[in-house]
Parts: sequence; C-alpha cells; structure tokens
Amino acid sequence: MERFFKHFHRKRDGRALYLYGLKPLEASPLPELEEPLAAASHLRWHPLRGEWVVYAAHRQERTFLPPKEHCPLCPGREGGFPTEIPFSDFQVAVFQNRFPAFVPDPFPPPEGLPVPVEAARGRCEVVVYTPRHTGSLASLSEEERRLLVEVWVDRYQELYAQEEVRFVMPFENRGEAVGVTLHHPHGQIYAYPFVPPVLEREARAFREGAVLEALFPHLSPYRVDEEGGLLAFVPPFARYPYEVWIAPRRRHPGPWTFSEEERWAFARLLGRVVARYDALFGEPFPYVMVFHASPKGEEAFFHFHVEFYPPKRTRDKLKFLAGTELGAGTFVVDALPEETARLLKEAL
Amino acid sequence: MERFFKHFHRKRDGRALYLYGLKPLEASPLPELEEPLAAASHLRWHPLRGEWVVYAAHRQERTFLPPKEHCPLCPGREGGFPTEIPFSDFQVAVFQNRFPAFVPDPFPPPEGLPVPVEAARGRCEVVVYTPRHTGSLASLSEEERRLLVEVWVDRYQELYAQEEVRFVMPFENRGEAVGVTLHHPHGQIYAYPFVPPVLEREARAFREGAVLEALFPHLSPYRVDEEGGLLAFVPPFARYPYEVWIAPRRRHPGPWTFSEEERWAFARLLGRVVARYDALFGEPFPYVMVFHASPKGEEAFFHFHVEFYPPKRTRDKLKFLAGTELGAGTFVVDALPEETARLLKEAL
Repeated sequence: MERFFKHFHRKRDGRALYLYGLKPLEASPLPELEEPLAAASHLRWHPLRGEWVVYAAHRQERTFLPPKEHCPLCPGREGGFPTEIPFSDFQVAVFQNRFPAFVPDPFPPPEGLPVPVEAARGRCEVVVYTPRHTGSLASLSEEERRLLVEVWVDRYQELYAQEEVRFVMPFENRGEAVGVTLHHPHGQIYAYPFVPPVLEREARAFREGAVLEALFPHLSPYRVDEEGGLLAFVPPFARYPYEVWIAPRRRHPGPWTFSEEERWAFARLLGRVVARYDALFGEPFPYVMVFHASPKGEEAFFHFHVEFYPPKRTRDKLKFLAGTELGAGTFVVDALPEETARLLKEAL
Repeated sequence: MERFFKHFHRKRDGRALYLYGLKPLEASPLPELEEPLAAASHLRWHPLRGEWVVYAAHRQERTFLPPKEHCPLCPGREGGFPTEIPFSDFQVAVFQNRFPAFVPDPFPPPEGLPVPVEAARGRCEVVVYTPRHTGSLASLSEEERRLLVEVWVDRYQELYAQEEVRFVMPFENRGEAVGVTLHHPHGQIYAYPFVPPVLEREARAFREGAVLEALFPHLSPYRVDEEGGLLAFVPPFARYPYEVWIAPRRRHPGPWTFSEEERWAFARLLGRVVARYDALFGEPFPYVMVFHASPKGEEAFFHFHVEFYPPKRTRDKLKFLAGTELGAGTFVVDALPEETARLLKEAL
C-alpha cells in the first residue's frame, strides 16, 4: 500500500481526534461536539476471581445523547449539527471516547475500600470506519479496509508506546443483540493498564506451546476461508455456535509485523467473513469481534488472531449466557463446529 | 426442621424423578411426558483459554416442545396433558434434564479431533420449586423455602457421592432477559466431571487466604440484609450493577454443614433478596443465581456463597456483555456497589 495521510486535531474539549485518508486531507474544522473527558474511573480488585473490575461510574450520567437523526459519528457539515468529527474530508477517524473506562489522567481512586484499588489509567478510543452512515466491514471498499488495517497498526504502535499500557485491544460490537445503539460503522480500542484475564491465559498457553501453529495442519473440516497466508476457521473448540477466528499461518505478535501481502489478505478476509455472516441468514449478523495481539512483553510467543463471537444460535434464537457460562465459566454449545464451518463456507 | 419425605420414581423413559414433601407423599403416577435421555454430549479442550467446552449437539434437535398452555413443570392431573411430573402430591420435585449437558452414561466422544476430547459424564437436573405455576423464591412460604434448602442439600450429597463428579452447582436463570422460556418457578443443578474455571480460581483464592472472612468486618456500606449468621451484600468489587452475594459468616464448604439456624436463615435471606430485587423496579427482576459450594477436595478452605448476577443496569436498560467482558474478561461497570447496596437496602 502507498503511504497514507494522518491529521491530528485537538478537540475544543481537550480530546484527541485523528483523521486518516489515502489522499492529503482537507482539514478545516466545522462545528464540533464538546464534551470534556470524564475521568472518574477506577479499578477494584476482585479477590475471588483474581481480576480487576473497572468502575466508570460517570457512564450512567451521560449529559449528551444526540437525537436519533443526529449521528455523532457522521462527518461535520457546514451549517449542520455538531458531531464528534468536525471535518468533512477523511476516510477513517479515531477519537478519544467521551465516557471511557480508562483515561490518561484519571482522578485518584477512592480511599478506604476493603479491596485493593488503582487509578484507571489507559486509553479508550472510537474508530469510525467510514464517513458513510451505513455499511459494515463487508461493505467497505478494498482500499478502505486496507487503510483501516493501517489505522489499527498505527493505533497499536501509538498506544503500546504509552508507559502505562500493558494490552491494547481493538474490538467491534455489532448489532442491537449485543447492545449497540449507534449504527454508523465503527469499532473501539481499549488500552488496558494491566493484562486482562483472558489474555493472561492465552499468553500462558502460547508460552507453553505453539498452540495455533500445531492446529493449522488439522483444520480442514473447520476452514471457512483463506487468503495470502491467513486462515478463517471455526475453532474445533468454539464456545459460540458461529464463532470464527482469523489468524496468519506464520506467527505474528500483532498485525504491525504483517507483510504487505498479509495486510491485504487480512483486510480481504475481514470483509469476507462479515459478508459470509450476513449471507448466512440474509440479514446483518450481530457479533462481538476482538483482536488478540500480544500483551506487552509476550511478543516472542504470542500468535495474533481475531475472534468473532456471534450471539445467534439460529436465525431467530439467541445464545444467552447464563448459569453455567457466567457462574462457572463453562460454555455449553448446541451446534458442532464442523457443521457451522460448513454452513459458513457455503454461505458465499 | 422436622424430617422431610422423599419419593423416588423411575420415569417410563428411564429418567429419575424425586418428589419431596413435608408430609408423606401420595404417590400414584399420572400421565407422564416421555423423552429418552439424549446422550450425545462430549467435551472438547480449548487450548488457548485452558478450559473444557461442552457440546450438547442434541439440544438443537429437541423433538418435543409443549404448547404454551401446557407447562411441563406443572403437576400431572387425572385426564390432563402429560407433564414431567406425573404426580399431584409434592412440594418440590427434581428430575433429570431431558437435554442435558452431562449424562451418567454418555456416548463415547468423537475420534480424530485436533484437540483433546472426553465423554461428558455427569448429571443435569431440574428443580421445580413448587407445584404452583407462578411465583418465585420470594413468594414461596417459609416452610417451602426451608424444604427447598433441604432438597439442595440432599442433591449435593447424592451428586457428590458419584465417583465422576468434581463440582455440583445449583443455579437459577430467571426472566426472559436471561433467556428463560419456562416461567414455572424452577432452577437447575449441573454436576460437572471437572472443576470449572471460575471455581478453580475461587478455590485457589480460598487456599491462599480466608478472603470472605477478611471482608466481613468491612462490609457496612455494602450490607443489604442479614439474618442468623448469614449476610446479604453487594460485593465491593461487583461485576454487575445489582450483584448480590449471600454468605454465612462462619466458613462452610456448602449448605450441607449449615446448622439448623443457618438453614432457616439461608431460606429467609434467599426469599428476602429476591423480594428486594422485585421491589426495586416494581416488577419481577431477572437474574442468574449460582451457588458456589466447595469443589470436591477443597472442603478445608472453600467458603460457600451464593452469587446473583442481574442483567439490568436501570429499569429499562440491560447491561450487555460485549468486547471487553467477553473478549478480555474485564468487566466495566457504571454503578458503584455502595450506591446499589443502599438502593437494595431501602427497597424493602
């Protein structure tokens, strides 16, 4: 890919905004949504599960909710309503979340609690995939998706450069079934000041063996799609009926070490996996998509991969997480990975 | 409590049914729902998270779904439609789940998979709290709730006596928001052939220190209710806005070592916690309730407690588990435990 262009803007409320494009950006600011960064988050230690819980108590008190016809993720317009992105010319935009779980300069944590507390230092960003109000990872053009890969790499590098950050996770919650209320195509990035429990466990597994590389020769019944050194497959141990993973055959700690060919292949596979999902039931398919790149310090062993968790069991039925999943951590699945892999393979 | 009465019935399809009552039971069988136990479950090892996933593939193929007006958990009636409980006289009934995650005699697991597999040996039971079609833990009489405590103790003892069982968990999923479709008051019990990940972590915490006992002297802002040596409180590290735990002050591995006073107190507190939940928004409050008793072999340290996970953030808003919770295992909560504890305390 040729070079891309990046423009930094400090919003009037102090929050950072980054615009990305394939051509030089025409950067003249328009009316902008002002909302100072809330900073009342803190961490509390859960002594039984052995994990941090994040309290972002300001999130119940959101002062601003745009009327439905005013999408805060749309580009600004001359004389239009204010949005988060007071520019008309960009292809991808990233800005600091107004109601973040983690902030660069958090208030001190409360005192006198019966469990350990910490400041919730870190970053939370919103990634707007396109200026267009509708669409998905599947409907972006090849070049737009390719730029988006470059944006994720840029954010990984900038966020991992922060002293306090231990793990960076781009993710996307898609669809009302997973609680999404803004329909403009977008994802998020959390930069955590600790290694979250799921990543601790994955890092331990990779330290003990090349788990994914050992799996690849046996994936034939599970393969959904493939391109330029990357695989899309239903893991043989899927916890959601239509769970899909994307991973490079060669071990990479994150997409920042991908070759040019792997970057294009990653962009294309992301689009095609979402297109397969949408084709499955002939309607936009809800999912939670998470990127698992290496936490800081695990780069020698960790194997980057993307995990999609769709909440659907069938067209009309949701998989609810309940007693055994939430209370014991053991998932009960009523569809076989071999079967859902076949359906997703045949969907396109 | 005086002694209770228990009647065993082998259903015509082979499944076990236990009836419990405070008086001798009039046990003459009525028409019964026949559905042979499906046995196609198996376990697969998730090598990255390091946990077992249960495949109960038969669950998508349920052959029998009763019409809405025919509740399968209601008592049988002379000349009525067949139900799971072909008896009219009982106070609590327990039967083997027709579509279980774990079975006493599972089929052999599939061969040739690229991850370790195991048979899904264990038990899954349904606990019908009352013959009445409507109600909740809160609306049972004192004596009914007290009998229910005795039933749980009986099930714990019988299930832990099975060689293959490593952990037994009674739980209740309540409300459509957590996916429940049968409204007759009931819970379930899973008897696992392994120690599930959440319990592994809790057992490790208790081996390292008396975590709950250390917390009790500091719970004043978190206390919701209290009776006869048991506490109900919002944990200072709650992962759900209205999470409540019930625990005995003295360490017990499970309710089977409770004193007579503690059994009554447990029955009363369970009822009052649910009554507080229902009073909070003036409507039945959805939740997942799980019992965390000691896994086999951890009895010397483990401290029994009950955890309620309600999916509501406010009267109208659900807390969705999404990117950070499902993909990283880190919960972000937007209500402070001190505040929700006060609301639940004032609710009754």
